[in-house]
Amino acid sequence: MDLFEAIKVRRSVRKFKRDAVSEESLKKILNAARMAPTAENFQPWKIIVVTDEDVKRKLVPACNNQRFVAEAPIVLVACGLPDEAYPIMGGYMNSYPVDVAIVLDHVMLAAAAEGLGTCWIGSFKEEKVAEATGVPPEAKVVALTPLGYPAEDSERTDRKNLTELVSYNKY
Amino acid sequence: MDLFEAIKVRRSVRKFKRDAVSEESLKKILNAARMAPTAENFQPWKIIVVTDEDVKRKLVPACNNQRFVAEAPIVLVACGLPDEAYPIMGGYMNSYPVDVAIVLDHVMLAAAAEGLGTCWIGSFKEEKVAEATGVPPEAKVVALTPLGYPAEDSERTDRKNLTELVSYNKY
Repeated sequence: MDLFEAIKVRRSVRKFKRDAVSEESLKKILNAARMAPTAENFQPWKIIVVTDEDVKRKLVPACNNQRFVAEAPIVLVACGLPDEAYPIMGGYMNSYPVDVAIVLDHVMLAAAAEGLGTCWIGSFKEEKVAEATGVPPEAKVVALTPLGYPAEDSERTDRKNLTELVSYNKY
Repeated sequence: MDLFEAIKVRRSVRKFKRDAVSEESLKKILNAARMAPTAENFQPWKIIVVTDEDVKRKLVPACNNQRFVAEAPIVLVACGLPDEAYPIMGGYMNSYPVDVAIVLDHVMLAAAAEGLGTCWIGSFKEEKVAEATGVPPEAKVVALTPLGYPAEDSERTDRKNLTELVSYNKY
């Protein structure tokens, strides 16, 4: 699928078919993640591919009771590793949230290109997600997404105008 | 361009032609940014499109003397607005670095699809970038990128194997 088309069709999907995700699509998506750039190419990230029903069930309360998360055949848990990341991005921050976000954006667009739905989940309790999936203290959970075939057409949400988002030469 | 092709051809470009970026391409790229998802759709971001030679010159020391930054016809400065972002991603972090990274990843892929080169710049002094471009205290500079037509074929950097990056059901 054309890149701009993938950007356009990607939506937050909150209803999924029960159909399993094809192995080929999952492989393409994970390879898209793998190709993502990270600061200094440190690749300080891990993705957990959750298909086990018990683990998925535990992710619902961990995601503040967003039940649709576990209705997709797969949930991806995206983690960053601060100790392996670039520690002084902009002179002030560890790069891991940015690194993981780039990786997961690649995932979301690749999924859209494969006809799959995703939804950035930022509303979760890190310690509960860690408990459900065995994430160790040295890793930080940055975001999750369900992954499956959409069971409904999601509406596109509005966006600000470019004039509000972009300026020239000065902020 | 096909999404997976754009992911594949995107490289960190550090040599640029002097040719101006076409208005049409810039518009497509900024619109790709605009379509990017952000936590709660708050869109807490701004991009400064720097074309002014004086401002670009000031960005070189601000980017720890990476001279190639100013050799591209355009430099994009990507900022986040913590006060307008989702404050408790995962229960522990402000979403602005993730939001801005998603936006800028859309930019990088859109640029690749338009035959343009970019390079994630994380090595910079935020206060100097802010001074050069008038970024106010309430905004945080997350990353920059030069934007222009590549003057060389960049080599793809290696990536870890998927077995190191991905696990199933448990971390």
